[in-house]
Amino acid sequence: MKKVAVIMGSTSDSSVVQAACDQLKEFGIPHTTHVLSAHRTPAAAARFAQTARDNGYGVIICAAGMAAHLAGTFAGNTILPVIGIPLKGGVMDGMDALLATVQMPSGIPVATVAINGAKNAAILAAQILAVEDQDLAKALNAQRAEMAQNIDNANAKLRMIGQQ
Amino acid sequence: MKKVAVIMGSTSDSSVVQAACDQLKEFGIPHTTHVLSAHRTPAAAARFAQTARDNGYGVIICAAGMAAHLAGTFAGNTILPVIGIPLKGGVMDGMDALLATVQMPSGIPVATVAINGAKNAAILAAQILAVEDQDLAKALNAQRAEMAQNIDNANAKLRMIGQQ
Amino acid sequence: MKKVAVIMGSTSDSSVVQAACDQLKEFGIPHTTHVLSAHRTPAAAARFAQTARDNGYGVIICAAGMAAHLAGTFAGNTILPVIGIPLKGGVMDGMDALLATVQMPSGIPVATVAINGAKNAAILAAQILAVEDQDLAKALNAQRAEMAQNIDNANAKLRMIGQQ
Amino acid sequence: MKKVAVIMGSTSDSSVVQAACDQLKEFGIPHTTHVLSAHRTPAAAARFAQTARDNGYGVIICAAGMAAHLAGTFAGNTILPVIGIPLKGGVMDGMDALLATVQMPSGIPVATVAINGAKNAAILAAQILAVEDQDLAKALNAQRAEMAQNIDNANAKLRMIGQQ
Amino acid sequence: MKKVAVIMGSTSDSSVVQAACDQLKEFGIPHTTHVLSAHRTPAAAARFAQTARDNGYGVIICAAGMAAHLAGTFAGNTILPVIGIPLKGGVMDGMDALLATVQMPSGIPVATVAINGAKNAAILAAQILAVEDQDLAKALNAQRAEMAQNIDNANAKLRMIGQQ
Amino acid sequence: MKKVAVIMGSTSDSSVVQAACDQLKEFGIPHTTHVLSAHRTPAAAARFAQTARDNGYGVIICAAGMAAHLAGTFAGNTILPVIGIPLKGGVMDGMDALLATVQMPSGIPVATVAINGAKNAAILAAQILAVEDQDLAKALNAQRAEMAQNIDNANAKLRMIGQQ
Amino acid sequence: MKKVAVIMGSTSDSSVVQAACDQLKEFGIPHTTHVLSAHRTPAAAARFAQTARDNGYGVIICAAGMAAHLAGTFAGNTILPVIGIPLKGGVMDGMDALLATVQMPSGIPVATVAINGAKNAAILAAQILAVEDQDLAKALNAQRAEMAQNIDNANAKLRMIGQQ
Amino acid sequence: MKKVAVIMGSTSDSSVVQAACDQLKEFGIPHTTHVLSAHRTPAAAARFAQTARDNGYGVIICAAGMAAHLAGTFAGNTILPVIGIPLKGGVMDGMDALLATVQMPSGIPVATVAINGAKNAAILAAQILAVEDQDLAKALNAQRAEMAQNIDNANAKLRMIGQQ
Repeated sequence: MKKVAVIMGSTSDSSVVQAACDQLKEFGIPHTTHVLSAHRTPAAAARFAQTARDNGYGVIICAAGMAAHLAGTFAGNTILPVIGIPLKGGVMDGMDALLATVQMPSGIPVATVAINGAKNAAILAAQILAVEDQDLAKALNAQRAEMAQNIDNANAKLRMIGQQ
Repeated sequence: MKKVAVIMGSTSDSSVVQAACDQLKEFGIPHTTHVLSAHRTPAAAARFAQTARDNGYGVIICAAGMAAHLAGTFAGNTILPVIGIPLKGGVMDGMDALLATVQMPSGIPVATVAINGAKNAAILAAQILAVEDQDLAKALNAQRAEMAQNIDNANAKLRMIGQQ
Repeated sequence: MKKVAVIMGSTSDSSVVQAACDQLKEFGIPHTTHVLSAHRTPAAAARFAQTARDNGYGVIICAAGMAAHLAGTFAGNTILPVIGIPLKGGVMDGMDALLATVQMPSGIPVATVAINGAKNAAILAAQILAVEDQDLAKALNAQRAEMAQNIDNANAKLRMIGQQ
Repeated sequence: MKKVAVIMGSTSDSSVVQAACDQLKEFGIPHTTHVLSAHRTPAAAARFAQTARDNGYGVIICAAGMAAHLAGTFAGNTILPVIGIPLKGGVMDGMDALLATVQMPSGIPVATVAINGAKNAAILAAQILAVEDQDLAKALNAQRAEMAQNIDNANAKLRMIGQQ
Repeated sequence: MKKVAVIMGSTSDSSVVQAACDQLKEFGIPHTTHVLSAHRTPAAAARFAQTARDNGYGVIICAAGMAAHLAGTFAGNTILPVIGIPLKGGVMDGMDALLATVQMPSGIPVATVAINGAKNAAILAAQILAVEDQDLAKALNAQRAEMAQNIDNANAKLRMIGQQ
Repeated sequence: MKKVAVIMGSTSDSSVVQAACDQLKEFGIPHTTHVLSAHRTPAAAARFAQTARDNGYGVIICAAGMAAHLAGTFAGNTILPVIGIPLKGGVMDGMDALLATVQMPSGIPVATVAINGAKNAAILAAQILAVEDQDLAKALNAQRAEMAQNIDNANAKLRMIGQQ
Repeated sequence: MKKVAVIMGSTSDSSVVQAACDQLKEFGIPHTTHVLSAHRTPAAAARFAQTARDNGYGVIICAAGMAAHLAGTFAGNTILPVIGIPLKGGVMDGMDALLATVQMPSGIPVATVAINGAKNAAILAAQILAVEDQDLAKALNAQRAEMAQNIDNANAKLRMIGQQ
Repeated sequence: MKKVAVIMGSTSDSSVVQAACDQLKEFGIPHTTHVLSAHRTPAAAARFAQTARDNGYGVIICAAGMAAHLAGTFAGNTILPVIGIPLKGGVMDGMDALLATVQMPSGIPVATVAINGAKNAAILAAQILAVEDQDLAKALNAQRAEMAQNIDNANAKLRMIGQQ
């Protein structure tokens, strides 16, 4: 299976990013984690992106806050799908990071998920790899079934405690 | 090759959505276009999403404005990657559609592109399909080279007309 | 009397939603509480909405946060009045949920109340049922009188402690 | 049938408000239209609201822009359900009117629809009256069927012109 | 001297409003404090406003949060200058209250101060009364001199501790 | 009667500001108009403000857009009440000017009116001067009566043309 | 004198950027103009930035819209002062570009001017070069004097036409 | 070397501003710190700005919150480059201060850094002084190398603890 690269702009982002790694692990998707900055290590970031496909990566996940250029920088240096996670910490609960990630110019898309949506970034990466991978598709369907079951259980509990 | 479905919430969105279809055509990616509403035809929308993978689709693109629920509705009914295009037309140049598309709850991601970013949605769909398709990857790389060439040409022209 | 259904998108929303249930109870309005997700249990949500009127419901209250599609999903599957409570928790104190709830397209309204306004959602449900129910109208008028009395008491206290 | 009152804060709002009157007419719902201002005719507005229920009204629709106090003023003077239509014309495409309409304090709800959502306000009024009116419920269901049919027709046309 | 009325929409606002009372007291301006709600006691609020000038008031200060209609309701019922204090507590640190207070329609102004700016509301009231009151003008000038002196002292301290 | 000074930050603001001058003229309030910039003529602006009270002014109206510092600069140099008109032209329909005008620090208030609310600025100036001027108070009351009459006429017309 | 580089992200930005070039020309500051994209020509942009100081540049001006990464990309590749001009064209009159330009992470500043503020970017570049250049300082002072004179002339005209 | 002046609008801002002083000290740049208010000590602020260049200053850093006029006031009184630090504390995490600082009118720029970006303000000041100072340029390059090294170290640690 193609690998997923999980990139964060700063070590201080690792607690949010961990949810992506956990989810990838749960799906059994091979992945590596890196700290790379669009501004502080631009050359290393560009090099990683340019060689990612040849190095066996299928999807790149980038998490950054404030004027979040990380995902865009990666997207400009590879044709692999790049998933951007805007992080809270700047203004208005991460609206700066959201706009700086999603409002990419024509030609260079970033697949943006919710602010701090690290788990969803990993699920989206899995969905992308699952387009041609039947086993991963099954794992994704199983996760959906489990989510629905959890809600069924919650309703059963609501009925039992007489809230209904 | 897997097909791409391009869904719009209303026929009035077709002028924006056209750029996605044009780009898919340029890449030679098979695709179909549909009008389906999360609110006005919820059953048809759910059915389309639930059967999309079995019907040969690899990616779904959804374009909707205002309280844009279309991409989320599709994402809740399929494990295929769903790309959301928030449309202008509501408040603050489409901020309502952007937030209603990107801020998905944990478990059900939508790969959101820029407001009215129909062309980028198609390129992202191509990037997803290109993870396992070397020819499509070449086409994407060629497009990048052409973009860079256009900018080089612009600079050459700037130099010639003595602006530099 | 017609029943009121109180739907929340996640069990984590129950502490906010409780205020709606408490207010309905105070008015003696029969109601049931459910966890149903527009994205994680879309089929169950659609089914509930489609059969709600036949099952004796008169009003549906939906509480959801972030890209809050819950009220809109219900509204698309029933002609009963659907009241939406946008929840805090996403960006800008719930502005994402507010816009995703209120900015519904033409044809499918959601009666939106204030962010986290669970008590007001219940009062609005009571007002709707009271259009044809004189006793409930009396209860609503009594509540108004009590609110005014509380303010009169506050002013009396202000005068006594010499702040005036 | 109970009547619906359609109130606008200024004669300059009549072009937007017209869509509400047209929709009410289409449903055969008796209604009257008034210009009443929370600030310029506060006494007349309060009096209208206080006597509306006794005068045979079942729902009140209020449309106002900017610091839109009209719906809130009505809601504070009646226990009838009050539907608020925030109007464009102030800042950020009507965000001022939306917040001034929807963010009502605990105890006094306003059922808020989308900015400039006059047609939806009328449909919501119909849904409220239809809770106890089987004929109106049928008319609402017919409208839904027609909306779905329009979308089916749009898809048929898409297929014919070979866009699919 | 004319009196100043300090009105709050709810007793829960008293801690913020206290700063206005303290400042008025410091200037020796007679004032009274009241809880009056545009929505819960609309008649009492209207009556207070209509009779305020005859009752010896020169300025009215209104503090309210969320869909803050209090200042506007007073302004619609008196020609006295009405100062509005938007309160935090709703969305975006009080942006809802700010817009609902300041964006008044043509004909009925509210003199709006900063969010939670209770002290400034009192200073503005003093400035209004000082237009024709030389002693109050002196007190305002003395306060300005004291503010400037405090900053001079801060700079002297900065120089002493060698930060300069 | 004390005079009102109407200050604009740039000659390009004169079309909006004109409505303030027209309203002051209608009330018979003596006033002068000036172009003074907080940034381009800071010394002249400070001097005008510092001497305004001695020169017979009672109220100062300042209109500016973008990072609107004009009203704040005047307020920092006089104890006269300063009314700020935030102007459209920057971002989000004048939200930059509104925040830069209204969010004054403790000690130096600006009486802010709606964005582009030049007429209301003049009415507020009149209300301030009318605190001690019975004739001006009458004129303000007459204006209110006329506004109400206009709305009554609009309703009469609505009834006649059978819209009611 | 050190040169100024004026970079735009796209040829479509040239009409706004022209004002910067015109101002630099007026000050006699040598400058060159280039189209370079953070996303479409990342390598060329990085190379230009890395060699700019050695190539005789003293200041770099970057103009970009939407998720404007251009100035940040330059700032990450040079220690020259980089001035960012956020451009309108995305959401909320350029708020996306403003936040993506100004909210730079610790370590890599961008000197951001107003949205579409091309002329001010050039003046800021001149101010930076004038720190050690007495002639340029004189030119800047002369420009200030001219601005003040223009305002004096406007006031003289106002007095003449009797508006004062 | 030219000095840098660090100005704060209030002593309460000193904890944020300290990061600028620390960074300047680290670069060995002479600097002084002052409390000066655009509103409470306008004359002292104007005087400081007007004489700053003659007093040996090369750059001025201004930090202020809310309706942050400090940087603009300085910029209007000097042709030295003025760096503005918008401070949190008002609405939306400092959006009021950001807009009031950056949206300067044509002719008078402020070099704005991120909200609370005191360290970056100092680095920008160093970059400006380094245009003509080779030693400071070296120090800036060394800082960049250190930032990159820190990220390399973080990646080495990630590899060691087997996260990769």
